[in-house]
Amino acid sequence: MNTLDSSVTIFGDWGTSRLRLYLRQGKSVLDRRDGPGIGALTASPRETFLDLVGDWREAKPSLALLCGMVGSRNGWEEAAYAPCPARPDDIRRRLLRIDADGLPVAIVPGLSCVNALGGPDVMRGEETQILGALELNPVLKRGRHLLALPGTHTKWVVVEDGAIASFLTAPVGELYALLREHSILAKAAPGDDPESAEGFARGVARIVEQGPARLPHLIFETRSRQLLDGLPKADAMGFLSGLLIGSDTATTSSWFGGLGQVSLIGAPALGALYAHAIAALGGTSVSVDGDAAVLAGLTTLSSAKNSGAHVLA
Amino acid sequence: MNTLDSSVTIFGDWGTSRLRLYLRQGKSVLDRRDGPGIGALTASPRETFLDLVGDWREAKPSLALLCGMVGSRNGWEEAAYAPCPARPDDIRRRLLRIDADGLPVAIVPGLSCVNALGGPDVMRGEETQILGALELNPVLKRGRHLLALPGTHTKWVVVEDGAIASFLTAPVGELYALLREHSILAKAAPGDDPESAEGFARGVARIVEQGPARLPHLIFETRSRQLLDGLPKADAMGFLSGLLIGSDTATTSSWFGGLGQVSLIGAPALGALYAHAIAALGGTSVSVDGDAAVLAGLTTLSSAKNSGAHVLA
Repeated sequence: MNTLDSSVTIFGDWGTSRLRLYLRQGKSVLDRRDGPGIGALTASPRETFLDLVGDWREAKPSLALLCGMVGSRNGWEEAAYAPCPARPDDIRRRLLRIDADGLPVAIVPGLSCVNALGGPDVMRGEETQILGALELNPVLKRGRHLLALPGTHTKWVVVEDGAIASFLTAPVGELYALLREHSILAKAAPGDDPESAEGFARGVARIVEQGPARLPHLIFETRSRQLLDGLPKADAMGFLSGLLIGSDTATTSSWFGGLGQVSLIGAPALGALYAHAIAALGGTSVSVDGDAAVLAGLTTLSSAKNSGAHVLA
Repeated sequence: MNTLDSSVTIFGDWGTSRLRLYLRQGKSVLDRRDGPGIGALTASPRETFLDLVGDWREAKPSLALLCGMVGSRNGWEEAAYAPCPARPDDIRRRLLRIDADGLPVAIVPGLSCVNALGGPDVMRGEETQILGALELNPVLKRGRHLLALPGTHTKWVVVEDGAIASFLTAPVGELYALLREHSILAKAAPGDDPESAEGFARGVARIVEQGPARLPHLIFETRSRQLLDGLPKADAMGFLSGLLIGSDTATTSSWFGGLGQVSLIGAPALGALYAHAIAALGGTSVSVDGDAAVLAGLTTLSSAKNSGAHVLA
């Protein structure tokens, strides 16, 4: 039995828009506190962190393990990217150590890789969710699997025998937000209507028919349909979302050699859109809760069982 | 000889960002005046037009022929799209007639088509430049040719035996502006550095290597190179521009069955970027000045020589 199992630790998921801290004893969560993301700080990361930790110090936590944008250039301190392929031990060895008023803090590094296009790629925060997904669904630790983490910058990840082998990023959520907020498509139909499911399905279908290379031309089709058919905002935005998610998924399918069963990590609503696109392209998907994956991943990284030593002592 | 040749007419190129009026006698331009685009009006289109025409009325112009966004829903009055294939006579027959204080005004309609993707497509203003390019370079009136009109919404156009047969639009300039002004790529490197030629060439080369379907993933490569290599703003923006123009050109090449010789209509600086991408994809290009093309196109549309009647009398 691991000697850390009954010790008190703090886990933190500190992204651009949200900080979520957990007080843990063994594998139990005793308390949770939320704070501002790295992109919304009003004080330094150190002050923000120590303020939020507050009276948790009385429980004498032995460590605070933090993942996400806290380790970026604009975060607390930059934790250099670890290269792929990366196993838990590789990431553990590169934890960035900081002392916060006597409380040892360790920041999880992001990962870099040479992706399927022969170019550089990076992630920060997702590596912890991926390791967590492998713990939550151990069948993923053997053989070769495709995982997807949809979001502002969607990551498609290949794991091979428990290592994060390679990944590929598309700024799908960011492109959608730019088009939704700033484009002529948005100005032509103001309002906050959410995207329609019908529009989304049609966008995915157009990509399946025409192939992902047609994406820019199909984006303009949205405009033509506004002008010629009076396409409503909800359908236009759904169509755009379907085009973007469909093209990302179709391109990944040709890279991976078919989709097979994809593990979708993250928020259920966005995951459902990807699940639709994956099904339209002949794959299947299983979903993994994003918050559960972060906790499981931090547990893996705080554990010494794979390294044979108390790296976090 | 055409009896209109010595009459006085007004030609107008009235787009979103600019109004340019010409006072013509026969084929000579006597005077030119600039005014606000349809997107920057401070008075009604009618008032704006009549104010700018001013003392030109003393020359007793028989007609003002206007093309561009003046005929859009947000313009002076909507001139319904003419369907493709479209010859000059087809467009002439659909001119929208307006009386402006006793001065006859005719507004050139835009064109619609079912494009190569089986979807709707539209243009407004470019049809006049295309007809002008055919006049300026009559070899384009016989056989099948590919033309490109780069811009906010780049149009690729197939002309067949003098008719505008079909076209395909990609919002290349708009996507570039969204990424340059609002994306995380832009925020990571503020400033107004123009895009570098080296960055542009590298972007085109990446698309040629990887294929246009990789566009979203290569857009994120820009971000990875900022984070890992400190890619300067000028190179990042050049790279993005190369990716967008390269992917649009590569997709068009596969649609048209190779590029051959492309006629590039428009501003020289943007045309040169497309010429680079066309060459990288095995094609050649000739350039046609955009303003000259508008004037030649309006001349074609104001002429009765093809229709056998004075349609504009």
